[in-house]
Amino acid sequence: MSKLVPPHGGELIPLLVHEGKQLASLKAASLLTSVKMSSKEESDLVMLAMGAFSPLEGFMGKEDYLRVIKEMRLGNGLLWPIPVTLSITTEQANAIREGDKIALTSALNDDILGSMTITEMFTYDKSFEVRQVFGTTDLNHPGVAKTFNQGDIYLAGPVVAFSEGSYRKSFPEFAGPVETRSLFCEKGWETVAAFQTRNPIHRSHEYLTKIAMEVCDGLFIHPIVGNLKPGDIPADVRMECYRVMLENYYPKNKVVLKVYPMEMRYAGPKEALLHAIIRQNFGCSHLIIGRDHAGVGNYYGPYDAQKIFDEIRPSDLSIRPLKIDNTFWCHSCFSMATLNTCPHSNENHLNISGTRIREMLSAGERPPEEYSRKEVSDILIRYYQTLKAN
Amino acid sequence: MSKLVPPHGGELIPLLVHEGKQLASLKAASLLTSVKMSSKEESDLVMLAMGAFSPLEGFMGKEDYLRVIKEMRLGNGLLWPIPVTLSITTEQANAIREGDKIALTSALNDDILGSMTITEMFTYDKSFEVRQVFGTTDLNHPGVAKTFNQGDIYLAGPVVAFSEGSYRKSFPEFAGPVETRSLFCEKGWETVAAFQTRNPIHRSHEYLTKIAMEVCDGLFIHPIVGNLKPGDIPADVRMECYRVMLENYYPKNKVVLKVYPMEMRYAGPKEALLHAIIRQNFGCSHLIIGRDHAGVGNYYGPYDAQKIFDEIRPSDLSIRPLKIDNTFWCHSCFSMATLNTCPHSNENHLNISGTRIREMLSAGERPPEEYSRKEVSDILIRYYQTLKAN
Repeated sequence: MSKLVPPHGGELIPLLVHEGKQLASLKAASLLTSVKMSSKEESDLVMLAMGAFSPLEGFMGKEDYLRVIKEMRLGNGLLWPIPVTLSITTEQANAIREGDKIALTSALNDDILGSMTITEMFTYDKSFEVRQVFGTTDLNHPGVAKTFNQGDIYLAGPVVAFSEGSYRKSFPEFAGPVETRSLFCEKGWETVAAFQTRNPIHRSHEYLTKIAMEVCDGLFIHPIVGNLKPGDIPADVRMECYRVMLENYYPKNKVVLKVYPMEMRYAGPKEALLHAIIRQNFGCSHLIIGRDHAGVGNYYGPYDAQKIFDEIRPSDLSIRPLKIDNTFWCHSCFSMATLNTCPHSNENHLNISGTRIREMLSAGERPPEEYSRKEVSDILIRYYQTLKAN
Repeated sequence: MSKLVPPHGGELIPLLVHEGKQLASLKAASLLTSVKMSSKEESDLVMLAMGAFSPLEGFMGKEDYLRVIKEMRLGNGLLWPIPVTLSITTEQANAIREGDKIALTSALNDDILGSMTITEMFTYDKSFEVRQVFGTTDLNHPGVAKTFNQGDIYLAGPVVAFSEGSYRKSFPEFAGPVETRSLFCEKGWETVAAFQTRNPIHRSHEYLTKIAMEVCDGLFIHPIVGNLKPGDIPADVRMECYRVMLENYYPKNKVVLKVYPMEMRYAGPKEALLHAIIRQNFGCSHLIIGRDHAGVGNYYGPYDAQKIFDEIRPSDLSIRPLKIDNTFWCHSCFSMATLNTCPHSNENHLNISGTRIREMLSAGERPPEEYSRKEVSDILIRYYQTLKAN
């Protein structure tokens, strides 16, 4: 019997139809009214398809939606910090009735990815939603901007997914919770630490993950590969970095690298809870929470995403946060460290700004090895040179 | 309210009389038949005095003793892995009756350190005890030898301690569980990792403790300062090493250094459980268990002391083991590491035998900084030079 943590709510609920039924489902759905999803909604459908959003069985209805944004709970009381919704415009709404079954098509093309039985259509207050979820109504916040750019009506109901979109083809490391749980099980792991990442792994991130590996049976490097905000390093370049790190600096039998398709919300503390729920579904007992987890700009305090885990009930989650402070190389410790472990003053610490690192990489120059492994620096140097060439 | 783990069995039971009563107790005890304790028994009395052995209220009677050595449980079912007993010879036994009150005197001089009301006197099977506790009857095992050198009869009963012997005078860092719990509480710590040590802190030990510090609120460096086996570094030299490490390599507000008077049993896995119970009493949520914890020679497998924590029931202890693999400096990682975090082959690891280190130190030569901090090496060089001079 598996000794992994149970899925959130007790049961994994993947919503992808059996392979044998895909064609028939598709054919039937092609006759339905279709709704084109945004790229965020499409990636959420794939999350639902995988069972990564268990126990959700579709896009949220009004009761769940309101309780989630007000109290971070589903209608049934289960912890859920951020709504999972499907929006349409008022014009589109004219062609749809509650009770209808609709086809859900890809943001990229007209491929039908799933179907949904409409149980509710409801208007919502965008300002209220973003204030509750992101703590701000500032349009410079990418999550706020995305909400204000979407349709004014939410469509709710259970979904069936026919496909995982292009993700499984694009990423050999694509895997759902059923797959990772069986992988962890085969390896005999009970405690698995997940590392959420949207950046190349530098020494700082490596240190976070290695602390986790010293205290857990295994490490699950789990990059988010849904669309990011402008300026973030693209998924394929990051994947190259992860692979070269695993190749050179991690014991093979202690790490699993898989990707998941969600798009970042940049909701800081609330997104940290969502990341935790997702990783619990994937079978992880711990989630590494570093400084400013899932943050953007200065909207959240650097430790808000750690503190929020103290504000929920212990029974709300089986997964636990591994809270780790800001990490750096210390010349006097002659080691990576945090303020928890290093007594030396700031002058002893290797301090290089992100801007300076980008300058160095753009100029074809490797940052110090204490900041970034040379293999990763070389990949990023090539990437920044491509950027310049374009 | 304190959020520290509860003491073992639920309540701290220090057995030291109130200061105001010490003189009167002593005077009364001076009229009693006295039993001279061994240095092990004396240090156990001080452990009882502090409440470090809570919930024990004295030296064990036959029911507790037998169930402890057979099942690692007290008569009431509470986990207890190693007996805590007071032995006398058959000759001494002739002068004592069950029901008597006796005075307990120091191993070093005739100071009366406590009194005991005899509830039981019983013979015991030394071979059976050592096989159960140490897994061997080999007299080369220091715990086996100690048992075979003691009297043939155990005296049991509740004790009252009048003094903590010479420990509080010899070590400014001497403190009992009541004191450490209030210290941790003042610091606002909830999770505290204890580090059991009988050796100077080298980079390997530093790495263990720093991993613990990254995942807990605080570190409790807790050296054992009861008599050790020949060849171990004496307590005062080790204390100098601990102090210089704290001074130079640890943030002051994150570490507490205190000593405890027990003598090592060298009982490997079973002693690891005893160390855990003791640390739970001191207020720690975690105990670092490295390779061959509390081992000696080749009597135990290198991970036996980690595995034994999986063999007890989760409800047996509130404290949890922080199991960490063997640590080393890796030239390719350019970092301390374990086989959990380093993929590189043995040639990349700094390997120096203990013998070679002692040779270097004796010759006044500092081992590499990746093995030992220079401040610690210098203290040990001075110590080995004193040894040579004598």
